[in-house]
Amino acid sequence: MTRWKLILEWDGAPFMGWQRQDHGPSVQAAVERAASAMTGEAVTAHAAGRTDAGVHALGMAAHLDLARDLSPHRLREGLNALLRPDPVAVLHCEPVANDWHARFSCRGRRYLYRIANRRAPLTLDKGKAWRIGPALNLDAMREAASMLLGNHDFTTFRSVHCQSDSPVKTLDRLDVERVGEELHVHAAARSFLHHQVRSMVGCLALVGQGQWTPSDMRSALEARDRSALGFNAPPDGLYFVEALY
Amino acid sequence: MTRWKLILEWDGAPFMGWQRQDHGPSVQAAVERAASAMTGEAVTAHAAGRTDAGVHALGMAAHLDLARDLSPHRLREGLNALLRPDPVAVLHCEPVANDWHARFSCRGRRYLYRIANRRAPLTLDKGKAWRIGPALNLDAMREAASMLLGNHDFTTFRSVHCQSDSPVKTLDRLDVERVGEELHVHAAARSFLHHQVRSMVGCLALVGQGQWTPSDMRSALEARDRSALGFNAPPDGLYFVEALY
Repeated sequence: MTRWKLILEWDGAPFMGWQRQDHGPSVQAAVERAASAMTGEAVTAHAAGRTDAGVHALGMAAHLDLARDLSPHRLREGLNALLRPDPVAVLHCEPVANDWHARFSCRGRRYLYRIANRRAPLTLDKGKAWRIGPALNLDAMREAASMLLGNHDFTTFRSVHCQSDSPVKTLDRLDVERVGEELHVHAAARSFLHHQVRSMVGCLALVGQGQWTPSDMRSALEARDRSALGFNAPPDGLYFVEALY
Repeated sequence: MTRWKLILEWDGAPFMGWQRQDHGPSVQAAVERAASAMTGEAVTAHAAGRTDAGVHALGMAAHLDLARDLSPHRLREGLNALLRPDPVAVLHCEPVANDWHARFSCRGRRYLYRIANRRAPLTLDKGKAWRIGPALNLDAMREAASMLLGNHDFTTFRSVHCQSDSPVKTLDRLDVERVGEELHVHAAARSFLHHQVRSMVGCLALVGQGQWTPSDMRSALEARDRSALGFNAPPDGLYFVEALY
Protein backbone atom coordinates (compact mmCIF):
# COMPACT_ATOMS: atom_id res chain seq x y z
CA MET A 1 0.00 0.00 0.00
CA THR A 2 1.29 3.43 -0.93
CA ARG A 3 -0.01 6.66 0.56
CA TRP A 4 -0.11 9.38 -2.11
CA LYS A 5 -0.09 13.11 -1.53
CA LEU A 6 -1.97 14.99 -4.25
CA ILE A 7 -2.01 18.70 -5.03
CA LEU A 8 -5.38 19.58 -6.54
CA GLU A 9 -6.78 22.54 -8.43
CA TRP A 10 -10.51 22.95 -9.01
CA ASP A 11 -13.23 25.32 -10.10
CA GLY A 12 -15.72 25.22 -7.22
CA ALA A 13 -18.78 26.32 -9.21
CA PRO A 14 -20.34 22.88 -9.89
CA PHE A 15 -19.47 21.35 -6.51
CA MET A 16 -21.10 21.27 -3.07
CA GLY A 17 -17.55 21.65 -1.70
CA TRP A 18 -14.80 19.16 -0.99
CA GLN A 19 -16.76 16.80 1.25
CA ARG A 20 -18.93 14.03 -0.13
CA GLN A 21 -22.64 14.95 0.04
CA ASP A 22 -25.80 13.03 -0.60
CA HIS A 23 -27.49 15.95 -2.35
CA GLY A 24 -24.93 16.95 -4.97
CA PRO A 25 -21.49 16.54 -6.55
CA SER A 26 -18.35 16.97 -4.44
CA VAL A 27 -14.67 17.14 -5.27
CA GLN A 28 -13.97 14.28 -2.85
CA ALA A 29 -16.39 11.99 -4.70
CA ALA A 30 -14.90 12.98 -8.09
CA VAL A 31 -11.35 12.18 -6.93
CA GLU A 32 -12.37 8.92 -5.25
CA ARG A 33 -14.32 7.85 -8.35
CA ALA A 34 -11.33 8.53 -10.62
CA ALA A 35 -8.91 6.66 -8.34
CA SER A 36 -11.28 3.71 -8.03
CA ALA A 37 -11.81 3.58 -11.80
CA MET A 38 -8.05 3.55 -12.32
CA THR A 39 -7.19 0.85 -9.76
CA GLY A 40 -10.37 -1.10 -9.06
CA GLU A 41 -9.83 -0.34 -5.37
CA ALA A 42 -12.22 1.24 -2.86
CA VAL A 43 -10.62 4.65 -2.21
CA THR A 44 -11.16 7.29 0.46
CA ALA A 45 -9.58 10.71 -0.06
CA HIS A 46 -8.76 13.19 2.70
CA ALA A 47 -8.04 16.90 2.16
CA ALA A 48 -6.29 19.57 4.23
CA GLY A 49 -9.50 21.61 4.33
CA ARG A 50 -13.11 20.93 3.51
CA THR A 51 -14.13 24.14 1.68
CA ASP A 52 -17.72 25.31 1.09
CA ALA A 53 -19.84 24.97 -2.01
CA GLY A 54 -18.53 27.21 -4.77
CA VAL A 55 -15.09 27.76 -3.20
CA HIS A 56 -12.12 27.20 -5.53
CA ALA A 57 -8.73 25.59 -4.96
CA LEU A 58 -5.40 26.55 -6.52
CA GLY A 59 -3.37 24.03 -4.55
CA MET A 60 -5.35 21.87 -2.12
CA ALA A 61 -3.39 19.02 -0.53
CA ALA A 62 -5.07 15.64 -0.20
CA HIS A 63 -4.07 12.03 0.32
CA LEU A 64 -5.31 8.58 -0.60
CA ASP A 65 -3.98 5.02 -0.25
CA LEU A 66 -3.53 2.68 -3.22
CA ALA A 67 -2.40 -0.95 -3.27
CA ARG A 68 -1.63 -0.89 -6.98
CA ASP A 69 1.96 -0.01 -7.89
CA LEU A 70 2.08 3.19 -9.96
CA SER A 71 4.60 5.86 -10.88
CA PRO A 72 3.75 9.45 -9.87
CA HIS A 73 3.58 10.37 -13.56
CA ARG A 74 1.19 7.52 -14.39
CA LEU A 75 -1.06 8.27 -11.39
CA ARG A 76 -1.31 11.98 -12.21
CA GLU A 77 -2.00 11.43 -15.91
CA GLY A 78 -4.49 8.65 -15.21
CA LEU A 79 -6.42 10.62 -12.61
CA ASN A 80 -6.52 13.70 -14.83
CA ALA A 81 -7.86 11.66 -17.75
CA LEU A 82 -10.53 10.05 -15.56
CA LEU A 83 -11.52 13.29 -13.83
CA ARG A 84 -12.72 14.77 -17.14
CA PRO A 85 -15.03 16.57 -17.65
CA ASP A 86 -15.13 17.57 -13.98
CA PRO A 87 -13.11 20.79 -13.49
CA VAL A 88 -10.65 19.15 -11.09
CA ALA A 89 -6.96 18.64 -11.93
CA VAL A 90 -4.10 16.85 -10.18
CA LEU A 91 -1.17 19.27 -10.42
CA HIS A 92 1.31 17.03 -8.61
CA CYS A 93 1.49 13.74 -6.78
CA GLU A 94 4.14 12.00 -4.69
CA PRO A 95 4.39 9.03 -2.34
CA VAL A 96 4.47 9.96 1.37
CA ALA A 97 4.92 8.11 4.68
CA ASN A 98 1.97 6.00 5.76
CA ASP A 99 1.36 8.16 8.83
CA TRP A 100 1.29 11.40 6.83
CA HIS A 101 -2.21 12.89 6.87
CA ALA A 102 -3.40 15.74 4.62
CA ARG A 103 -5.58 17.17 7.39
CA PHE A 104 -3.93 16.23 10.66
CA SER A 105 -0.32 16.77 9.53
CA CYS A 106 -1.15 20.21 8.12
CA ARG A 107 0.60 23.07 9.94
CA GLY A 108 -0.72 26.02 7.97
CA ARG A 109 -3.37 27.01 5.46
CA ARG A 110 -3.40 29.93 3.03
CA TYR A 111 -6.42 31.47 1.32
CA LEU A 112 -6.85 34.18 -1.30
CA TYR A 113 -10.05 36.20 -1.66
CA ARG A 114 -10.53 38.16 -4.92
CA ILE A 115 -12.76 41.25 -4.89
CA ALA A 116 -13.42 42.85 -8.29
CA ASN A 117 -13.95 46.51 -7.42
CA ARG A 118 -15.77 47.78 -10.50
CA ARG A 119 -19.17 48.94 -11.70
CA ALA A 120 -19.49 46.62 -14.70
CA PRO A 121 -20.74 43.04 -14.26
CA LEU A 122 -18.09 40.33 -14.52
CA THR A 123 -17.77 38.37 -17.77
CA LEU A 124 -14.48 36.45 -17.99
CA ASP A 125 -14.23 36.30 -14.18
CA LYS A 126 -17.88 35.52 -13.49
CA GLY A 127 -18.01 33.16 -10.49
CA LYS A 128 -14.28 33.74 -9.91
CA ALA A 129 -14.43 36.95 -7.85
CA TRP A 130 -16.87 39.00 -5.75
CA ARG A 131 -17.86 42.18 -7.57
CA ILE A 132 -18.35 45.29 -5.44
CA GLY A 133 -19.35 48.42 -7.39
CA PRO A 134 -18.54 51.37 -5.10
CA ALA A 135 -14.84 52.29 -4.76
CA LEU A 136 -13.38 50.58 -1.67
CA ASN A 137 -11.13 52.37 0.82
CA LEU A 138 -8.01 50.21 0.84
CA ASP A 139 -6.33 51.98 3.77
CA ALA A 140 -9.38 51.53 6.02
CA MET A 141 -9.59 47.84 5.08
CA ARG A 142 -5.91 47.35 5.90
CA GLU A 143 -6.34 49.02 9.28
CA ALA A 144 -9.35 46.84 10.07
CA ALA A 145 -7.57 43.70 8.89
CA SER A 146 -4.64 44.35 11.24
CA MET A 147 -7.02 44.28 14.23
CA LEU A 148 -7.78 40.62 13.63
CA LEU A 149 -4.16 39.45 13.55
CA GLY A 150 -2.93 37.22 16.35
CA ASN A 151 -4.58 34.90 18.86
CA HIS A 152 -8.26 35.64 19.48
CA ASP A 153 -11.61 34.09 20.22
CA PHE A 154 -13.14 34.31 16.70
CA THR A 155 -16.69 33.34 17.75
CA THR A 156 -18.04 36.38 15.87
CA PHE A 157 -16.64 34.99 12.61
CA ARG A 158 -17.71 31.39 13.15
CA SER A 159 -20.51 29.51 11.43
CA VAL A 160 -23.14 27.87 13.65
CA HIS A 161 -22.19 24.65 11.84
CA CYS A 162 -18.53 24.90 12.85
CA GLN A 163 -17.19 21.62 14.28
CA SER A 164 -13.99 23.03 15.76
CA ASP A 165 -13.40 22.25 19.46
CA SER A 166 -12.47 25.83 20.21
CA PRO A 167 -13.24 29.27 18.72
CA VAL A 168 -9.72 30.43 19.63
CA LYS A 169 -7.42 30.62 16.62
CA THR A 170 -4.21 32.41 15.67
CA LEU A 171 -4.45 34.49 12.52
CA ASP A 172 -0.94 34.84 11.07
CA ARG A 173 -1.74 36.96 8.05
CA LEU A 174 -4.63 39.08 6.83
CA ASP A 175 -3.69 41.75 4.35
CA VAL A 176 -5.21 43.50 1.40
CA GLU A 177 -3.45 44.52 -1.82
CA ARG A 178 -4.66 46.23 -4.96
CA VAL A 179 -4.02 44.28 -8.20
CA GLY A 180 -5.36 46.27 -11.14
CA GLU A 181 -9.06 46.75 -10.53
CA GLU A 182 -9.10 43.94 -7.96
CA LEU A 183 -8.43 43.81 -4.23
CA HIS A 184 -6.77 40.60 -3.05
CA VAL A 185 -7.18 39.57 0.58
CA HIS A 186 -4.51 37.11 1.75
CA ALA A 187 -5.24 35.05 4.88
CA ALA A 188 -3.02 32.51 6.63
CA ALA A 189 -3.36 30.53 9.85
CA ARG A 190 -2.64 27.09 11.22
CA SER A 191 -6.38 26.47 10.88
CA PHE A 192 -9.58 28.44 10.39
CA LEU A 193 -13.09 28.17 11.78
CA HIS A 194 -15.90 27.28 9.39
CA HIS A 195 -16.77 30.41 7.34
CA GLN A 196 -14.05 32.43 9.08
CA VAL A 197 -12.37 33.78 5.93
CA ARG A 198 -15.67 34.65 4.25
CA SER A 199 -16.91 36.31 7.46
CA MET A 200 -13.74 38.38 7.83
CA VAL A 201 -13.85 39.43 4.16
CA GLY A 202 -17.53 40.35 4.45
CA CYS A 203 -16.69 42.69 7.36
CA LEU A 204 -13.66 44.09 5.51
CA ALA A 205 -16.00 44.97 2.64
CA LEU A 206 -18.28 46.87 5.05
CA VAL A 207 -15.22 48.82 6.20
CA GLY A 208 -14.12 49.43 2.60
CA GLN A 209 -17.53 50.89 1.78
CA GLY A 210 -17.56 53.11 4.88
CA GLN A 211 -20.46 51.28 6.54
CA TRP A 212 -18.12 50.19 9.34
CA THR A 213 -15.12 52.03 10.76
CA PRO A 214 -11.95 50.02 11.41
CA SER A 215 -12.77 50.15 15.12
CA ASP A 216 -16.14 48.53 14.43
CA MET A 217 -14.09 45.51 13.37
CA ARG A 218 -12.39 45.44 16.77
CA SER A 219 -15.76 45.78 18.52
CA ALA A 220 -17.20 42.91 16.47
CA LEU A 221 -14.23 40.69 17.36
CA GLU A 222 -14.48 41.59 21.06
CA ALA A 223 -18.24 40.95 21.13
CA ARG A 224 -17.60 37.21 20.58
CA ASP A 225 -21.13 37.09 19.31
CA ARG A 226 -22.44 35.85 15.95
CA SER A 227 -25.04 38.63 15.89
CA ALA A 228 -22.20 41.19 15.77
CA LEU A 229 -21.20 39.77 12.40
CA GLY A 230 -21.64 41.80 9.23
CA PHE A 231 -22.20 39.04 6.68
CA ASN A 232 -20.35 36.34 4.80
CA ALA A 233 -18.69 37.23 1.52
CA PRO A 234 -19.91 34.92 -1.28
CA PRO A 235 -17.89 31.78 -2.04
CA ASP A 236 -17.11 32.89 -5.65
CA GLY A 237 -14.04 34.92 -4.66
CA LEU A 238 -12.47 32.41 -2.26
CA TYR A 239 -9.48 30.23 -3.21
CA PHE A 240 -7.69 27.67 -1.06
CA VAL A 241 -4.10 28.46 -2.07
CA GLU A 242 -1.79 26.15 -0.16
CA ALA A 243 -1.45 23.75 2.75
CA LEU A 244 1.85 23.79 4.64
CA TYR A 245 3.44 20.73 6.30
CA MET B 1 -28.35 61.88 -32.48
CA THR B 2 -25.36 61.08 -30.33
CA ARG B 3 -22.56 58.75 -31.38
CA TRP B 4 -21.36 56.71 -28.41
CA LYS B 5 -17.98 55.02 -28.02
CA LEU B 6 -18.21 51.88 -25.89
CA ILE B 7 -15.40 49.84 -24.33
CA LEU B 8 -16.55 46.22 -24.09
CA GLU B 9 -15.33 43.15 -22.25
CA TRP B 10 -16.63 39.70 -23.11
CA ASP B 11 -16.12 35.99 -22.64
CA GLY B 12 -16.00 34.64 -26.19
CA ALA B 13 -17.01 31.06 -25.36
CA PRO B 14 -20.75 31.26 -26.19
CA PHE B 15 -20.39 33.55 -29.23
CA MET B 16 -19.72 33.06 -32.95
CA GLY B 17 -17.53 36.17 -32.65
CA TRP B 18 -18.29 39.88 -32.81
CA GLN B 19 -20.09 39.91 -36.15
CA ARG B 20 -23.78 39.14 -36.43
CA GLN B 21 -24.36 35.60 -37.82
CA ASP B 22 -27.42 33.73 -38.95
CA HIS B 23 -26.31 30.47 -37.36
CA GLY B 24 -25.53 31.49 -33.78
CA PRO B 25 -25.20 34.21 -31.12
CA SER B 26 -22.83 37.12 -31.67
CA VAL B 27 -21.60 39.94 -29.46
CA GLN B 28 -22.78 42.49 -32.01
CA ALA B 29 -26.35 41.15 -31.87
CA ALA B 30 -26.30 41.11 -28.05
CA VAL B 31 -25.16 44.76 -27.87
CA GLU B 32 -27.61 45.90 -30.54
CA ARG B 33 -30.48 44.06 -28.82
CA ALA B 34 -29.67 45.69 -25.46
CA ALA B 35 -29.41 49.17 -26.99
CA SER B 36 -32.67 48.69 -28.89
CA ALA B 37 -34.46 47.42 -25.79
CA MET B 38 -33.27 50.47 -23.86
CA THR B 39 -34.20 53.11 -26.43
CA GLY B 40 -36.78 51.60 -28.75
CA GLU B 41 -34.47 52.56 -31.66
CA ALA B 42 -33.06 50.37 -34.44
CA VAL B 43 -29.35 50.21 -33.58
CA THR B 44 -26.28 49.09 -35.54
CA ALA B 45 -23.04 48.61 -33.60
CA HIS B 46 -19.54 48.74 -35.16
CA ALA B 47 -16.38 47.39 -33.50
CA ALA B 48 -12.66 48.05 -34.02
CA GLY B 49 -12.11 44.38 -34.87
CA ARG B 50 -14.37 41.50 -35.74
CA THR B 51 -12.81 38.62 -33.72
CA ASP B 52 -13.39 34.90 -34.34
CA ALA B 53 -15.73 32.54 -32.51
CA GLY B 54 -14.45 31.89 -28.99
CA VAL B 55 -12.06 34.88 -28.92
CA HIS B 56 -12.32 37.08 -25.82
CA ALA B 57 -12.16 40.85 -25.37
CA LEU B 58 -10.70 42.80 -22.46
CA GLY B 59 -11.28 46.21 -24.02
CA MET B 60 -12.88 46.18 -27.46
CA ALA B 61 -13.90 49.59 -28.78
CA ALA B 62 -17.24 49.93 -30.55
CA HIS B 63 -19.69 52.67 -31.47
CA LEU B 64 -23.40 53.10 -31.98
CA ASP B 65 -25.76 56.04 -32.63
CA LEU B 66 -28.71 56.85 -30.36
CA ALA B 67 -31.36 59.56 -30.75
CA ARG B 68 -32.45 59.30 -27.13
CA ASP B 69 -30.71 61.65 -24.71
CA LEU B 70 -28.82 59.69 -22.05
CA SER B 71 -25.97 60.27 -19.61
CA PRO B 72 -22.90 58.03 -19.99
CA HIS B 73 -23.64 56.56 -16.56
CA ARG B 74 -27.25 55.76 -17.44
CA LEU B 75 -26.29 54.23 -20.80
CA ARG B 76 -23.60 51.99 -19.29
CA GLU B 77 -25.78 50.81 -16.41
CA GLY B 78 -28.78 50.27 -18.68
CA LEU B 79 -26.85 48.29 -21.28
CA ASN B 80 -25.18 46.17 -18.60
CA ALA B 81 -28.54 45.36 -17.02
CA LEU B 82 -30.04 44.42 -20.40
CA LEU B 83 -27.00 42.41 -21.55
CA ARG B 84 -27.52 39.90 -18.71
CA PRO B 85 -27.11 36.97 -18.73
CA ASP B 86 -24.84 37.25 -21.80
CA PRO B 87 -21.18 37.49 -20.67
CA VAL B 88 -20.70 40.94 -22.23
CA ALA B 89 -20.06 44.09 -20.16
CA VAL B 90 -19.79 47.76 -21.03
CA LEU B 91 -16.75 48.98 -19.08
CA HIS B 92 -16.97 52.57 -20.26
CA CYS B 93 -18.96 54.79 -22.60
CA GLU B 94 -18.57 58.35 -23.82
CA PRO B 95 -20.05 60.58 -26.52
CA VAL B 96 -17.78 61.10 -29.56
CA ALA B 97 -17.86 63.17 -32.77
CA ASN B 98 -20.33 61.99 -35.39
CA ASP B 99 -17.53 61.16 -37.85
CA TRP B 100 -15.61 59.02 -35.30
CA HIS B 101 -15.69 55.36 -36.35
CA ALA B 102 -14.63 52.43 -34.14
CA ARG B 103 -13.16 50.57 -37.11
CA PHE B 104 -12.04 53.21 -39.62
CA SER B 105 -10.66 55.68 -37.05
CA CYS B 106 -8.64 52.96 -35.30
CA ARG B 107 -4.86 53.49 -35.52
CA GLY B 108 -3.67 50.45 -33.59
CA ARG B 109 -4.84 47.14 -32.17
CA ARG B 110 -3.36 45.11 -29.32
CA TYR B 111 -3.88 41.40 -28.64
CA LEU B 112 -2.81 39.07 -25.83
CA TYR B 113 -2.47 35.32 -26.28
CA ARG B 114 -2.30 33.18 -23.12
CA ILE B 115 -0.54 29.80 -23.28
CA ALA B 116 -0.79 27.64 -20.13
CA ASN B 117 2.41 25.61 -20.23
CA ARG B 118 1.56 22.73 -17.91
CA ARG B 119 0.77 19.03 -17.92
CA ALA B 120 -2.46 19.19 -15.93
CA PRO B 121 -5.76 20.00 -17.66
CA LEU B 122 -7.14 23.49 -17.05
CA THR B 123 -9.92 23.94 -14.50
CA LEU B 124 -10.38 27.58 -13.47
CA ASP B 125 -8.90 28.78 -16.78
CA LYS B 126 -10.67 26.27 -19.01
CA GLY B 127 -11.51 28.03 -22.28
CA LYS B 128 -9.38 31.03 -21.21
CA ALA B 129 -5.94 29.80 -22.33
CA TRP B 130 -4.32 27.26 -24.67
CA ARG B 131 -2.76 24.45 -22.67
CA ILE B 132 0.51 22.99 -24.02
CA GLY B 133 1.98 20.16 -21.93
CA PRO B 134 5.67 19.95 -22.94
CA ALA B 135 7.96 22.67 -21.57
CA LEU B 136 8.31 25.46 -24.15
CA ASN B 137 11.63 27.07 -25.06
CA LEU B 138 11.01 30.74 -24.36
CA ASP B 139 14.29 31.98 -25.88
CA ALA B 140 13.64 30.19 -29.18
CA MET B 141 10.10 31.61 -29.29
CA ARG B 142 11.42 35.12 -28.70
CA GLU B 143 14.00 34.75 -31.48
CA ALA B 144 11.33 33.47 -33.88
CA ALA B 145 8.91 36.25 -32.90
CA SER B 146 11.48 38.93 -33.67
CA MET B 147 11.70 37.68 -37.28
CA LEU B 148 8.11 38.70 -37.91
CA LEU B 149 8.48 42.29 -36.70
CA GLY B 150 8.18 45.09 -39.23
CA ASN B 151 6.59 45.46 -42.67
CA HIS B 152 6.05 42.15 -44.49
CA ASP B 153 3.77 40.29 -46.84
CA PHE B 154 2.00 38.07 -44.26
CA THR B 155 0.26 35.81 -46.81
CA THR B 156 1.57 32.74 -44.95
CA PHE B 157 -0.35 33.81 -41.83
CA ARG B 158 -3.56 34.81 -43.60
CA SER B 159 -6.88 32.98 -43.61
CA VAL B 160 -8.39 32.13 -47.00
CA HIS B 161 -11.44 34.07 -45.77
CA CYS B 162 -9.44 37.25 -45.19
CA GLN B 163 -11.10 40.32 -46.72
CA SER B 164 -8.13 42.65 -46.44
CA ASP B 165 -7.12 44.44 -49.67
CA SER B 166 -3.46 43.62 -49.14
CA PRO B 167 -1.46 40.94 -47.29
CA VAL B 168 1.20 43.54 -46.43
CA LYS B 169 1.03 44.66 -42.80
CA THR B 170 3.39 46.22 -40.29
CA LEU B 171 3.80 44.24 -37.08
CA ASP B 172 4.86 46.66 -34.34
CA ARG B 173 5.14 44.23 -31.44
CA LEU B 174 5.34 40.48 -31.01
CA ASP B 175 6.95 39.37 -27.79
CA VAL B 176 6.68 36.52 -25.35
CA GLU B 177 6.93 36.73 -21.56
CA ARG B 178 6.66 34.12 -18.83
CA VAL B 179 4.00 34.85 -16.17
CA GLY B 180 4.02 32.04 -13.62
CA GLU B 181 3.22 28.84 -15.51
CA GLU B 182 1.88 30.82 -18.48
CA LEU B 183 3.49 32.32 -21.56
CA HIS B 184 1.91 35.56 -22.71
CA VAL B 185 2.30 36.60 -26.34
CA HIS B 186 1.72 40.32 -26.92
CA ALA B 187 0.96 41.47 -30.46
CA ALA B 188 0.36 45.00 -31.75
CA ALA B 189 -0.16 46.44 -35.22
CA ARG B 190 -2.22 49.09 -36.96
CA SER B 191 -4.29 46.19 -38.29
CA PHE B 192 -4.05 42.42 -38.65
CA LEU B 193 -5.06 39.94 -41.34
CA HIS B 194 -7.81 37.44 -40.54
CA HIS B 195 -6.32 34.70 -38.29
CA GLN B 196 -2.91 36.39 -38.30
CA VAL B 197 -2.39 36.39 -34.52
CA ARG B 198 -3.57 32.79 -34.11
CA SER B 199 -1.38 31.70 -37.05
CA MET B 200 1.69 33.42 -35.64
CA VAL B 201 1.08 31.95 -32.17
CA GLY B 202 0.58 28.47 -33.67
CA CYS B 203 3.98 28.73 -35.36
CA LEU B 204 5.59 30.14 -32.19
CA ALA B 205 4.30 27.06 -30.34
CA LEU B 206 5.99 24.80 -32.93
CA VAL B 207 9.23 26.68 -32.28
CA GLY B 208 8.75 26.44 -28.51
CA GLN B 209 8.35 22.67 -28.78
CA GLY B 210 11.41 22.31 -31.01
CA GLN B 211 9.44 21.16 -34.06
CA TRP B 212 10.51 24.33 -35.88
CA THR B 213 13.75 26.28 -35.53
CA PRO B 214 13.53 30.05 -35.33
CA SER B 215 14.79 30.22 -38.91
CA ASP B 216 11.87 28.03 -40.03
CA MET B 217 9.71 30.98 -38.99
CA ARG B 218 11.63 33.25 -41.37
CA SER B 219 11.32 30.67 -44.16
CA ALA B 220 7.58 30.39 -43.59
CA LEU B 221 7.20 34.18 -43.76
CA GLU B 222 9.32 34.41 -46.92
CA ALA B 223 7.38 31.59 -48.60
CA ARG B 224 4.27 33.85 -48.76
CA ASP B 225 2.31 30.66 -49.05
CA ARG B 226 -0.53 29.35 -46.89
CA SER B 227 0.80 25.81 -47.21
CA ALA B 228 3.97 26.90 -45.35
CA LEU B 229 1.82 27.62 -42.30
CA GLY B 230 2.12 25.52 -39.17
CA PHE B 231 -1.38 25.74 -37.80
CA ASN B 232 -3.71 28.17 -36.04
CA ALA B 233 -3.64 28.35 -32.25
CA PRO B 234 -7.13 27.77 -30.80
CA PRO B 235 -9.30 30.83 -30.07
CA ASP B 236 -9.50 30.09 -26.31
CA GLY B 237 -6.25 31.90 -25.48
CA LEU B 238 -6.80 35.02 -27.60
CA TYR B 239 -7.87 38.36 -26.10
CA PHE B 240 -8.50 41.62 -27.93
CA VAL B 241 -6.88 43.99 -25.43
CA GLU B 242 -7.18 47.52 -26.77
CA ALA B 243 -7.90 49.69 -29.79
CA LEU B 244 -5.88 52.89 -30.16
CA TYR B 245 -7.18 56.12 -31.75
